Amino acid sequence: MNEVITLLQSHRSVRKFTDQTIPQTVLEELIKCGQAAATSSFIQACTVIQVEDKNKRKLLVDLAGGQPYVEHASRFLVFCADMNRHKLVCDMHNSKMEAGYTEQFITATVDVALFAQNVLTAAQSLGIEGVYIGGIRNNIAEVSDLLELPKLVYPVFGMCLGYPAQDPETKPRLPLSVVLKTDHYQDDNDTTAISEYDEQVREYYRSRTNGKKETAWSEKIADMLVKEARPHMNPYLKDRGFILK
Amino acid sequence: MNEVITLLQSHRSVRKFTDQTIPQTVLEELIKCGQAAATSSFIQACTVIQVEDKNKRKLLVDLAGGQPYVEHASRFLVFCADMNRHKLVCDMHNSKMEAGYTEQFITATVDVALFAQNVLTAAQSLGIEGVYIGGIRNNIAEVSDLLELPKLVYPVFGMCLGYPAQDPETKPRLPLSVVLKTDHYQDDNDTTAISEYDEQVREYYRSRTNGKKETAWSEKIADMLVKEARPHMNPYLKDRGFILK
Repeated sequence: MNEVITLLQSHRSVRKFTDQTIPQTVLEELIKCGQAAATSSFIQACTVIQVEDKNKRKLLVDLAGGQPYVEHASRFLVFCADMNRHKLVCDMHNSKMEAGYTEQFITATVDVALFAQNVLTAAQSLGIEGVYIGGIRNNIAEVSDLLELPKLVYPVFGMCLGYPAQDPETKPRLPLSVVLKTDHYQDDNDTTAISEYDEQVREYYRSRTNGKKETAWSEKIADMLVKEARPHMNPYLKDRGFILK
Repeated sequence: MNEVITLLQSHRSVRKFTDQTIPQTVLEELIKCGQAAATSSFIQACTVIQVEDKNKRKLLVDLAGGQPYVEHASRFLVFCADMNRHKLVCDMHNSKMEAGYTEQFITATVDVALFAQNVLTAAQSLGIEGVYIGGIRNNIAEVSDLLELPKLVYPVFGMCLGYPAQDPETKPRLPLSVVLKTDHYQDDNDTTAISEYDEQVREYYRSRTNGKKETAWSEKIADMLVKEARPHMNPYLKDRGFILK
């Protein structure tokens, strides 16, 4: 329909990068795109830590579950939900901040995601590619210590950015009928639609791996969800002052 | 730097729309842009409910705190974090889903936000404008009932979309030094930077209201955060099967 829509619809994660550096002026322009995103009640709760220290990058590879591109990408950004800034602001006005509400956790987390998605879109419009790194939540307390995050700040995800040295295919998404409903939720036909989609995903993996892998989407999801999911997150967040009430 | 970056940096929320309808084919193209966004571990946890029923739109105006554009916008979308779909998938494979982890709540919520931001960016590239409606969380249980959301689905926010009948200014954002840090968190100079920024925000409100309003950013935030923030969210989410562990 237009170039922006083509850009958005052609998204895929890129994990291999050339040695070319993203200039700091460009990075800052991307961050300004992030800042321009909508922000709930104007809270502006996103803080980005750009990790340049080579040693910290190495440590983050391990903390994020062994993803080498965290070290090798031109830039590695950690996107944090930050309500410490708001505590500072309350202190400026001698107000007592009512922290710890789950609602604030949601608004801050959403703020961060809207911000980050703008950063990635802006980057991709310049021929830069990247990948989100949710793996930093594997060892979130250690990552927080490494980046000296105070209470009321938590790292939501990382992002590798660089000039691409690979050109992967886009991954097929769920049928529109499964994700878009009218007036009310209903999932009566979803099982059938998902079964058809499973075949597409099988074919996607088959063609990418010369027939070695052919997992259906529903199999992958079912396998993943019988296991516990980062059970440390709930106590970690409470310790940092989030989702207390 | 390029048109995409100009588009992203010129974002502002639009709340007044013409009567022109967004064609369904266009809306579906926007949704496909949302689907193309990154999704944590391929979970694809976003479901969008487009609300066409006029009576439901009217009810949503009140439930969202009296925002008339929820009724009058060409389209009103409710973006839901959906783990019910994953339960369905686990049932397909006779697997027992380990639900209720805070981690899953985060990945689903982030998925929704990345998806929605793509929808908005794609819309804006076509001359459509909009605004996020976090206000649906004011009465989230009633909104969930109205849209017949099952357990493991929660409405994160709404979005009005339409052709703009107003052209507001962009709102100034925090100085870059406050939101972008290198290698570690530090807020030593943030108070000074925020005080300078406060003057910009005062000037923004002054010029928009003919001098009637001139609230600084830090004042607005401090005023807001001395109050409780939707205290029903934590019990609501637990009741729906989220953040239980």
